[in-house]
Amino acid sequence: MGAFDEDTAVRPVGEGRWAARIDAAWNIGDNPNGGYLVAVVLRALQSLAPHPDPVSVTTHFLRPGTGGEDAMVEGELVRTGRSVTTVRGRLHQEGSQRIEVLAAFADLDAGSPVDAALTIPAPPMPPPEECLTRSGAEQGVELPILGRLETLIHPEQVLGGQAGRAEISGWIRFADGQAPDPLAAVLCCDAFPPSLFGLLGVIGWVPTIELTVHVRRRPAPGWLLGRFTTRDVRQGRMVEDGALWDEQGALVAQSRQLGLLLTR
Amino acid sequence: MGAFDEDTAVRPVGEGRWAARIDAAWNIGDNPNGGYLVAVVLRALQSLAPHPDPVSVTTHFLRPGTGGEDAMVEGELVRTGRSVTTVRGRLHQEGSQRIEVLAAFADLDAGSPVDAALTIPAPPMPPPEECLTRSGAEQGVELPILGRLETLIHPEQVLGGQAGRAEISGWIRFADGQAPDPLAAVLCCDAFPPSLFGLLGVIGWVPTIELTVHVRRRPAPGWLLGRFTTRDVRQGRMVEDGALWDEQGALVAQSRQLGLLLTR
Repeated sequence: MGAFDEDTAVRPVGEGRWAARIDAAWNIGDNPNGGYLVAVVLRALQSLAPHPDPVSVTTHFLRPGTGGEDAMVEGELVRTGRSVTTVRGRLHQEGSQRIEVLAAFADLDAGSPVDAALTIPAPPMPPPEECLTRSGAEQGVELPILGRLETLIHPEQVLGGQAGRAEISGWIRFADGQAPDPLAAVLCCDAFPPSLFGLLGVIGWVPTIELTVHVRRRPAPGWLLGRFTTRDVRQGRMVEDGALWDEQGALVAQSRQLGLLLTR
Repeated sequence: MGAFDEDTAVRPVGEGRWAARIDAAWNIGDNPNGGYLVAVVLRALQSLAPHPDPVSVTTHFLRPGTGGEDAMVEGELVRTGRSVTTVRGRLHQEGSQRIEVLAAFADLDAGSPVDAALTIPAPPMPPPEECLTRSGAEQGVELPILGRLETLIHPEQVLGGQAGRAEISGWIRFADGQAPDPLAAVLCCDAFPPSLFGLLGVIGWVPTIELTVHVRRRPAPGWLLGRFTTRDVRQGRMVEDGALWDEQGALVAQSRQLGLLLTR
């Protein structure tokens, strides 16, 4: 059992209630990474669903979480059908709700293969040994999370504004060697620096209002390649699109988030 | 007051409960359009939020709705903050839940304009008079909804498989001349034929598992231009991306849905 499994473990404490502990090892600056909080909730919701894999996960981030503190997860079944189960869940700490999750579970390997084998090919990317460790400079923060998630950035996107466009890409994997699974895919869609860093330079904290991840495939072991772009910013609200591929180049997840650019 | 406002009207019947009537005028085949059901729920949730506009709306479609029948909407505030209010809601008919909605409201005109004026330009599109009325042929169904929503399709995308790619685009507006608003933008992200029609030809009903719409701007009066594409199909589950622009070419909404291709 790897650190990700341990740190997202939940313990049933009643009908639709689970106790968890939010480990500060996943912090970005002073607060835990949002995707990590989502993974804790999904761990609980997974036990409600007869289908194994989260295929659509929408999270609203209400308040930052607190690392090193206990948490309470609540969740309930909305509907279960032949091929899809819908669930919702919430994570509370110290009496206040931090996130709200609405998700569909299915079996990633089941379904009706149709005659439209469309996919999104992985973008060109230098190999991991030519990429550079994420520094936190883009947000001016310490990154304890790098002890859990090894995160390498494209060598031409490491400096603020260097890319000249709102794009960030690189490689990511668990530092302890645990192989990625569908929950890890959800986590890793929220673990790269904001793509606007490539256009604007240091931009501080970009709170996510809402993040939706579609997991498309069980990833192969090894690195995940992530690519995130922003094409649409208005009134300080940005829509960032992302995707993950596994080491074999197969599409693992797509993501989109609505984020808030704070006034500098 | 236009037909859209009338047909989405809700009447409070208690704390967090509203009565509504689902009009069969919005049917696609035998069931009401999903976006119309979402608009009914948003109409109720809007009254819970101090912020006026839905900026992120995620809907899970659990069961088809029933046109010509009463409905009960339930909703509650999740959190209200300075710039964003989060709400959730459900629509029931005849005792069974049809959809589940999780949404964030904000003020589309408020926010902190930042120095990244990124947007997605409208694609080239023949004027409405050169486009053709949607026929329903792509799904083999009658379309009562066309009496409410005038829907014109790109002349080169009218026949199944004609486009040679998974794309559908065209113009849409209320048939009674009501100007589009943010709720109409949510509706219109779910009112075009499936984009896979352009690649596969007649494909029948493509049930939506989950749809997320980000409304980006209050639309100008007149037509909305819609463009929908699918780049990612696997195991019968497709991810379709969409966007709407107003008559002035300004981006009004982005959408993404997870849909199910039924075996033929």
